Amino acid sequence: MKPVVVTGPPRADAGVVAALGRQGVATIHEAMGRVGLLGDTLRPVWPGAQAAGTAVTALCLPGDNLTVHLAVEQTQPGDLLVVTTTSPSVDGYIGELFTTALAARGVVGLVTTTGIRDVADITRAKFPAWSRAVNAQGTVKATAGEVNRPIAIGGMVIHPGDAVIADDDGVVCVPRRRTDEVLAACEQRTERESKARGAYAHGELSLDVNNLRGLVEQLGVEYVSWEDDAKQARDDG
Amino acid sequence: MKPVVVTGPPRADAGVVAALGRQGVATIHEAMGRVGLLGDTLRPVWPGAQAAGTAVTALCLPGDNLTVHLAVEQTQPGDLLVVTTTSPSVDGYIGELFTTALAARGVVGLVTTTGIRDVADITRAKFPAWSRAVNAQGTVKATAGEVNRPIAIGGMVIHPGDAVIADDDGVVCVPRRRTDEVLAACEQRTERESKARGAYAHGELSLDVNNLRGLVEQLGVEYVSWEDDAKQARDDG
Amino acid sequence: MKPVVVTGPPRADAGVVAALGRQGVATIHEAMGRVGLLGDTLRPVWPGAQAAGTAVTALCLPGDNLTVHLAVEQTQPGDLLVVTTTSPSVDGYIGELFTTALAARGVVGLVTTTGIRDVADITRAKFPAWSRAVNAQGTVKATAGEVNRPIAIGGMVIHPGDAVIADDDGVVCVPRRRTDEVLAACEQRTERESKARGAYAHGELSLDVNNLRGLVEQLGVEYVSWEDDAKQARDDG
Amino acid sequence: MKPVVVTGPPRADAGVVAALGRQGVATIHEAMGRVGLLGDTLRPVWPGAQAAGTAVTALCLPGDNLTVHLAVEQTQPGDLLVVTTTSPSVDGYIGELFTTALAARGVVGLVTTTGIRDVADITRAKFPAWSRAVNAQGTVKATAGEVNRPIAIGGMVIHPGDAVIADDDGVVCVPRRRTDEVLAACEQRTERESKARGAYAHGELSLDVNNLRGLVEQLGVEYVSWEDDAKQARDDG
Amino acid sequence: MKPVVVTGPPRADAGVVAALGRQGVATIHEAMGRVGLLGDTLRPVWPGAQAAGTAVTALCLPGDNLTVHLAVEQTQPGDLLVVTTTSPSVDGYIGELFTTALAARGVVGLVTTTGIRDVADITRAKFPAWSRAVNAQGTVKATAGEVNRPIAIGGMVIHPGDAVIADDDGVVCVPRRRTDEVLAACEQRTERESKARGAYAHGELSLDVNNLRGLVEQLGVEYVSWEDDAKQARDDG
Amino acid sequence: MKPVVVTGPPRADAGVVAALGRQGVATIHEAMGRVGLLGDTLRPVWPGAQAAGTAVTALCLPGDNLTVHLAVEQTQPGDLLVVTTTSPSVDGYIGELFTTALAARGVVGLVTTTGIRDVADITRAKFPAWSRAVNAQGTVKATAGEVNRPIAIGGMVIHPGDAVIADDDGVVCVPRRRTDEVLAACEQRTERESKARGAYAHGELSLDVNNLRGLVEQLGVEYVSWEDDAKQARDDG
Repeated sequence: MKPVVVTGPPRADAGVVAALGRQGVATIHEAMGRVGLLGDTLRPVWPGAQAAGTAVTALCLPGDNLTVHLAVEQTQPGDLLVVTTTSPSVDGYIGELFTTALAARGVVGLVTTTGIRDVADITRAKFPAWSRAVNAQGTVKATAGEVNRPIAIGGMVIHPGDAVIADDDGVVCVPRRRTDEVLAACEQRTERESKARGAYAHGELSLDVNNLRGLVEQLGVEYVSWEDDAKQARDDG
Repeated sequence: MKPVVVTGPPRADAGVVAALGRQGVATIHEAMGRVGLLGDTLRPVWPGAQAAGTAVTALCLPGDNLTVHLAVEQTQPGDLLVVTTTSPSVDGYIGELFTTALAARGVVGLVTTTGIRDVADITRAKFPAWSRAVNAQGTVKATAGEVNRPIAIGGMVIHPGDAVIADDDGVVCVPRRRTDEVLAACEQRTERESKARGAYAHGELSLDVNNLRGLVEQLGVEYVSWEDDAKQARDDG
Repeated sequence: MKPVVVTGPPRADAGVVAALGRQGVATIHEAMGRVGLLGDTLRPVWPGAQAAGTAVTALCLPGDNLTVHLAVEQTQPGDLLVVTTTSPSVDGYIGELFTTALAARGVVGLVTTTGIRDVADITRAKFPAWSRAVNAQGTVKATAGEVNRPIAIGGMVIHPGDAVIADDDGVVCVPRRRTDEVLAACEQRTERESKARGAYAHGELSLDVNNLRGLVEQLGVEYVSWEDDAKQARDDG
Repeated sequence: MKPVVVTGPPRADAGVVAALGRQGVATIHEAMGRVGLLGDTLRPVWPGAQAAGTAVTALCLPGDNLTVHLAVEQTQPGDLLVVTTTSPSVDGYIGELFTTALAARGVVGLVTTTGIRDVADITRAKFPAWSRAVNAQGTVKATAGEVNRPIAIGGMVIHPGDAVIADDDGVVCVPRRRTDEVLAACEQRTERESKARGAYAHGELSLDVNNLRGLVEQLGVEYVSWEDDAKQARDDG
Repeated sequence: MKPVVVTGPPRADAGVVAALGRQGVATIHEAMGRVGLLGDTLRPVWPGAQAAGTAVTALCLPGDNLTVHLAVEQTQPGDLLVVTTTSPSVDGYIGELFTTALAARGVVGLVTTTGIRDVADITRAKFPAWSRAVNAQGTVKATAGEVNRPIAIGGMVIHPGDAVIADDDGVVCVPRRRTDEVLAACEQRTERESKARGAYAHGELSLDVNNLRGLVEQLGVEYVSWEDDAKQARDDG
Repeated sequence: MKPVVVTGPPRADAGVVAALGRQGVATIHEAMGRVGLLGDTLRPVWPGAQAAGTAVTALCLPGDNLTVHLAVEQTQPGDLLVVTTTSPSVDGYIGELFTTALAARGVVGLVTTTGIRDVADITRAKFPAWSRAVNAQGTVKATAGEVNRPIAIGGMVIHPGDAVIADDDGVVCVPRRRTDEVLAACEQRTERESKARGAYAHGELSLDVNNLRGLVEQLGVEYVSWEDDAKQARDDG
């Protein structure tokens, strides 16, 4: 890997990204066909954090945050910084000085597979941030990686300029050219879910609302009374 | 495993279950003789969540929540849904639509070894829920497992109708026919602890309150001054 | 290991310890030369917890908290109890009765590599506590370990009387005789960071504030436009 | 939990247990309907270990192997000792002295969720043993748990006298009264697999041997050439 | 995700892939600029396994191996099957029947982020296989994923037709169009290492062979005698 | 942390270290009073590896093995290199070139909390090595840590010159000035165990050989027949 900074990637449309942010991570993930999540290990630094922006990507070396410094320069308002490492590291790559700088540049959030520190300050400032760990462990500035090259987190590839949406449920990435299509699918899904919610609140069963009775029968699900089942269990020992 | 739904299991007495809920998980676990916990990996979705109900159990296949749909139909007011899988999965089996349905049916809480999603909504609605993870990852509805058969979580077997109590300290299960006995033991323990608390607040030592001095002597605990100990350490290198 | 209680270790100066507490864990860790952390697995029981005190150390056997009882007696106002085990255990060694006793003795906090229970009560009482897990699992009182001998957590050795500072970012230990020197280094660092913060808030880049441009050039970081990079990637397949 | 030793449980038939042993863990698990495994964390101490016996169960306290001493006395030829703990522990509960004693009593194997030590000696003696870890860490003998009460490992409940079969693929438990039925199902499965193996060795496809073409069509699986797919991907960005 | 099977992807040159296989995983990883590894969790089923082939990729759903059946049909001699899942699963997706079928088709190896079973048989047959776990747990065949679409494992993206090389050190992927360039870099590196090996065997120091003395000086490494260092440590307490 | 290399530490006596090596890790750990282990995560690269030497310690930065290069120069015949990092890293710090160099210098083994690579070559050369992981991931040479300063692994502090013994059961450290005392304790223990082994081989019970009957009675262990216990369980539900 030669150190490189890619400049000026095209970004997903800001309005569409904002609209995706209002849909939330779980809905987008479902609307994309149940893909797009960046795994189950990224958690918000403070509960209730929400962000939707266009990805600036940084691939750092373990225990070395110099590449984050390079990446900050490439951000513009509406971006969301996404950081990972060439081999696993939960060191505290990013603290309050960085989030202060990012906020001053109009960056809307931060997602990292590393650790984060100064979390009390970041929480107080309500800067939206997601990480794999909280960790005071500092890093060096001795080696450089890549900025704005595609990176892969949790099986999902993130390209610079993709839409990244994050909330309490995790983080999802929508490829730049699919944002319109995914937003439309979200809106359809939200409408369907709204109807289901009303039905459930009135006591209807999801087996009926989702027309699952046929499948249940086809799968041969057997209904048996507790008395009969307990008797059988006693006989089987 | 053939798919089966067991109907109409007897439930532990609602009043006793509620009384157990007021005792809390740690006290019940101690009163049962230090057993009954469902391991150390189940955490509340929101801090302060508390629930006590009668178990409806669901054993799902990995990545497939159809069995949860089957289980919901078997719940009645005062129940608490307990979900696990045939092999480990932290996918997001359950979201806000499910908890809305459960709340509408009078179900008092949810415990699952899987992931949960829509946690911002569930937190807002203050529906008590415990899980191994928060995860937006969706599931399919293609295979059916078992409802209201005994399941094992963290070394504890949960039968349908057992009392399940959950709070910030974790989740405990009290077998249906032992609830009276356990409640009585809790009350004795609570009284003893109340006295100890008063003593500690006035500066008494737990070594004295618990009569541990004899044991300490019997175990040959040696008291040595820091100066002597530091000197010995220097000599030992 | 023979059971032993070391009495009367010298403590770090209370005023210096308090001043270190105002600096925070991340700053102290950096000021010490990026060492001193007790690993990345110790988390506060409640967000916002902060404590700075002089260490009383306890080395317990797995599943057995008798040594904690021995350690409490050795505490004095301004101390912070640090607990670990001879082999890994996340059982709930410490609950609200212990923290009530510690608070009554003027102990300022608790750090343990084990589990903690009664966390709702401890949170309500705002007693500062850090642990590897929350766990209702109870322990026995059958074997004794060591009190006020050096222990090692996360690669850092803690001697009795050392300064231990803990906050949302984790836990750090400052050797007793180095507290003055570390505090001075913290103050210098805080001043530098304050200036950087102001610069960042006005849009300056950390590459400039930290004079990193030369290093970036020396490392051969290449800047390339997105169009050129995307074309090269297509050619490489 | 009061310390108790249950004596003289009925055992599964030795001949049927031996026949199950020849079927192997994966086949038995499938024949039981894909249940019965003791999780995915138990590994053989030496590759190629195989054992099939009737369970003597031991539930120990963490870091304390006294209950194993109690359990050894309850073993008889053909038994297999199954050990777990009330809370997780990977201490080295069992070493070569124990396996020497077990071998002398005709015990055919050992399965434990704890650690094992003296593994070079155990390997040399070819005593079949499965554990969660290898660990030299010793234990105390201060508290007693339960022998020959049901225990749960990895979601499966093991009763004393059940058939336990272990090999390189893991460990499976067959309830005592179901051994005949499971053995019959194994034999049917083995026959089917033998036919499939022959077909595969001659180049037939599992899609055909298992009649999966219809399901594939029903699920709407689309076949697309690499050229068309690559073009679409380029268009999507 | 719609179920799709991509047919006929171009493959990396068989001769170059074989030559890469002779270089080994660590050398290739270094020659690529320290990238290309599929993480640190994939281990060979039997020690000494080695394989180099062209990737056929399969993305399965959790607990469901139907997509593996679809993928087998797409393999040709010289291929290596690479399997992962949409959410983490260590179920035993693949056993000896599959490896028998793969061997019959001339497939040279198997890499999967899931579990593998029948490992005694696979070891006996010396079929090269890497997995995250050994696990007897069976799977269903109810849902279909993707075959021969790009997948990401451990931060590396694998395209169908890429060269995949695996040995005791792990698994590395070389993009199809970069195989010549990487092979050439490997050969240069191997030559350099051969010289270094000779020097080391004769007692030369890597500090000299790699010309590191200048860097060491520049970093300000201080040399101090043990006596002086021990004295300082005593003074610091 | 300032980079430092401490030169010429005193070593434990070579003859005593060799004698400790013949006792094995588990025996030494017990003889030291059940302390001294470097945790349960260090595993031999090849089964059957054994080593006993005097520690040269290296504390590296994450993803950077420059400090290992510095440490090699400090080794002399009979030493054993012990490597750890300032924050957790499983990168492949050490490969066959290093072990070739170490062997040429008469170093008897290697213990590292990082990853190791080239394990096929190291296994072929039968160089004794223990690590937390096998990992092809390479490292940089950009920052320096400490050589021959005390380090802590798994709660145990290792000083340069201490005796380190490693085998299939793990790794143990004996402080330099305690080697004679520990060896004597090992010899006593080995004699006792030899007698016990003979008794067990003849069918005696450990309850009797270790005089545990009195303790069992004192703990109130109850013996109950399976029939009575099963009846009680049915009544309890």
